[in-house]
Amino acid sequence: MENSSCGGGPFGRVVRCLKAVPERSWGEVLEAASEAKKLGEDDPRRIVHSFKVGLALTLVSLFYYCRPLYDGFGVDAMWAVLTVIVVFEFSVGATLGKGINMMLATLLAVALAVGVHHISTLWGGEVGEPILIAFFVFVVAASVTFMRFFPALKARYDYGMLIFILTFCLVSVSGYRETQVLDMAHKRLSTIAIGSCTPIMVCICICPVWIGVDLHNLVAGNMEKLGDFMEGFGFEYFDIKENGLSLSDNQYFLQQYKSVLSSKSLEETMANLARWEPGHGGFKFGHPWQKYLNVGSQTRQCAYKIEALNTYLNTDIQVPTEIRSKIQEPCIDICTESGKALKELAAALKKMIRSSSADSHIACSKAAVESLKLSLKRGIWKDANLLETIPSAAVASLLIEVVACVEKIAEAVHELASVAHFKTEQPQLLQEPVLSEEFNVAITIDRNSQI
Amino acid sequence: MENSSCGGGPFGRVVRCLKAVPERSWGEVLEAASEAKKLGEDDPRRIVHSFKVGLALTLVSLFYYCRPLYDGFGVDAMWAVLTVIVVFEFSVGATLGKGINMMLATLLAVALAVGVHHISTLWGGEVGEPILIAFFVFVVAASVTFMRFFPALKARYDYGMLIFILTFCLVSVSGYRETQVLDMAHKRLSTIAIGSCTPIMVCICICPVWIGVDLHNLVAGNMEKLGDFMEGFGFEYFDIKENGLSLSDNQYFLQQYKSVLSSKSLEETMANLARWEPGHGGFKFGHPWQKYLNVGSQTRQCAYKIEALNTYLNTDIQVPTEIRSKIQEPCIDICTESGKALKELAAALKKMIRSSSADSHIACSKAAVESLKLSLKRGIWKDANLLETIPSAAVASLLIEVVACVEKIAEAVHELASVAHFKTEQPQLLQEPVLSEEFNVAITIDRNSQI
Repeated sequence: MENSSCGGGPFGRVVRCLKAVPERSWGEVLEAASEAKKLGEDDPRRIVHSFKVGLALTLVSLFYYCRPLYDGFGVDAMWAVLTVIVVFEFSVGATLGKGINMMLATLLAVALAVGVHHISTLWGGEVGEPILIAFFVFVVAASVTFMRFFPALKARYDYGMLIFILTFCLVSVSGYRETQVLDMAHKRLSTIAIGSCTPIMVCICICPVWIGVDLHNLVAGNMEKLGDFMEGFGFEYFDIKENGLSLSDNQYFLQQYKSVLSSKSLEETMANLARWEPGHGGFKFGHPWQKYLNVGSQTRQCAYKIEALNTYLNTDIQVPTEIRSKIQEPCIDICTESGKALKELAAALKKMIRSSSADSHIACSKAAVESLKLSLKRGIWKDANLLETIPSAAVASLLIEVVACVEKIAEAVHELASVAHFKTEQPQLLQEPVLSEEFNVAITIDRNSQI
Repeated sequence: MENSSCGGGPFGRVVRCLKAVPERSWGEVLEAASEAKKLGEDDPRRIVHSFKVGLALTLVSLFYYCRPLYDGFGVDAMWAVLTVIVVFEFSVGATLGKGINMMLATLLAVALAVGVHHISTLWGGEVGEPILIAFFVFVVAASVTFMRFFPALKARYDYGMLIFILTFCLVSVSGYRETQVLDMAHKRLSTIAIGSCTPIMVCICICPVWIGVDLHNLVAGNMEKLGDFMEGFGFEYFDIKENGLSLSDNQYFLQQYKSVLSSKSLEETMANLARWEPGHGGFKFGHPWQKYLNVGSQTRQCAYKIEALNTYLNTDIQVPTEIRSKIQEPCIDICTESGKALKELAAALKKMIRSSSADSHIACSKAAVESLKLSLKRGIWKDANLLETIPSAAVASLLIEVVACVEKIAEAVHELASVAHFKTEQPQLLQEPVLSEEFNVAITIDRNSQI
């Protein structure tokens, strides 16, 4: 309808249409701009990544501008451009994985294609050659496509298998028209190597994004989120206020754990990609990334319990305060101690140290569980309506289970710390207890500044 | 170490190494073969897919064998081969999405690249042209790479944006060396169109795999899994046996629900791809796929409760039978009725009908909840040790919540059924209650055979 108002001469129409656009979509443009700003602020590495891609592409397109390089490769140089674009990923792990897959697959596929070309020309003759080549293309494409369904191969070599089919088909099929198959194969290999190495170098040398570090922080951050919830839950459930203000007035902390529930596939992808990365920072090549999945899985088990606990925060059924208050003390202790334990575990993992500071909190929370059990045994709700006690009983039961979950998380973290050879926290303090007071203080300050 | 035994003349070495291989890896080969067989048996569409890819590639490589076609396109025909390989996906939705993305992105990128080439030659001169082109390549690559971070764009057009950068760079950069830019652009567009349409046609015409149908079945199947668990849980928890055999002796059914917990990302990907599919079977184009995500999310909420329930099956703390038995009757009713309700909902969704058969089961389960609450109010555990009653109280509380979840699932399914215009189940029976007895029986039999 609006378009019909853009009538008139061709020039007038363009002007009027241009005038009409801002009115209609000015808001959308502003919205997109603010979303872009938010994306950049949330993770400035995204902006850096965009510039890196632009740089790698400009570098590789030098091939076209330098006559000596162009004369060497000719139109084949476009393979280098193509490779840069498909190989360049956000993280070093993903880029390395794709680059290595690309190079290995091209090498294997070119070798096989040259062999097939040789056999076809030798045995096929004028008529038989295209038929033989078509047959081989069909067989290789179908069988490698089927191999892509193997989960173990798919996890690491899916991209390589795709490139294998691609290169095999291109080289063996174009071999039918071009006589210099070996020359073509050689050019293809060199351009792919250049195209793969450029993004890998740019990705590693300029502000590298290590997906291993991201996984490390994700797993630690998830534990921290659960810790935040547990610390807040006790005060929120028993409605404890200080000076009229809720002690956990930040509803934000009580919702953060939700992302943990569905983090499984993300963690698995990240662990798969992290295996490609070379040593960096405190992470050596061959860092036990699979152990992070174990910690993540235990954390998720705990998150499921917390999801069940969360129902009792938002339920309409109000339990009388006198029923709740009878289990308040041990429950608050369980919440704060297990919350602290989770946060200590997260902090130790983040700092990559073996720490036993969480163990004391776990011991405290277990003691609180025993005291909760004792007061339940004493029959504190004898006179109350059983129906009204049910939600509180369920909360008590879930809290007892959360403590068991936290213990399992701690085990998983300790196992990871031992397999990954994390440093023990300040062993010198344990071995040399005769240090002067000042030195001790200095170490403590130093440790605090690390946090 | 084993390699050193393969010494001797070159021929003897090869023979000995070949002999050594089977001993070492015969087991692995057999294992891979049995895994391949299992993959094929689990989903025979995988085998068909592999053959389809082989067929599409063989079809497209005809370009090289037919001289008239080859003379038209020359080496550009390899773009068609490349496109077939990267566009061909397992499902119609994914193939269509990639194909349409590929064609649209190529069209836009070629247009922009021709424009940029025109500007550079016009304004740049001998020296300025490569600098201008390099500048445009950098700007376009960096900005489109940043756009790939927008979640809304990433979900549907991620592949298109990659291809946009690729084509723009290739056309504008090679335009520097080749004079016939328009001719190149035209050839690129036609080969990409051929390369995109071939897999789309093969994918749709030969045993199409509709990802919409897969999503439909996944969501219904997930509800069924929860139904299986609920039906089995009651008998398992209260340890009910008939003739010495457990009524739910199939532990398999009690573990199936676990896959529901982490199905979120899979469902979202499938819904995104299903939107590309044309109408097929009972699904029209524009089928409300987003509503399936709503059903899936409610199902997952229920699965979290079930995960909490499952703990009480495998717990070491044994609750005395006399405590459990006091809530046995209403709990078993809740389990079986909500299980039946979930299965009825799943069956109705699978058959794409609006059915109210689940409502009666939900009503029954709600009645059982009321009776459970009544018996709890009567104080059935007055004399028992409170600590021993806690697990049973928690189970009762969770069962009450599961019923609320099932109600929400039913609402979501009914909403989906109304938005998707599912047929009402046998409206003629409701409108014409004067049908003869025989006719009624015939319809019932017919309906049963549909199940």
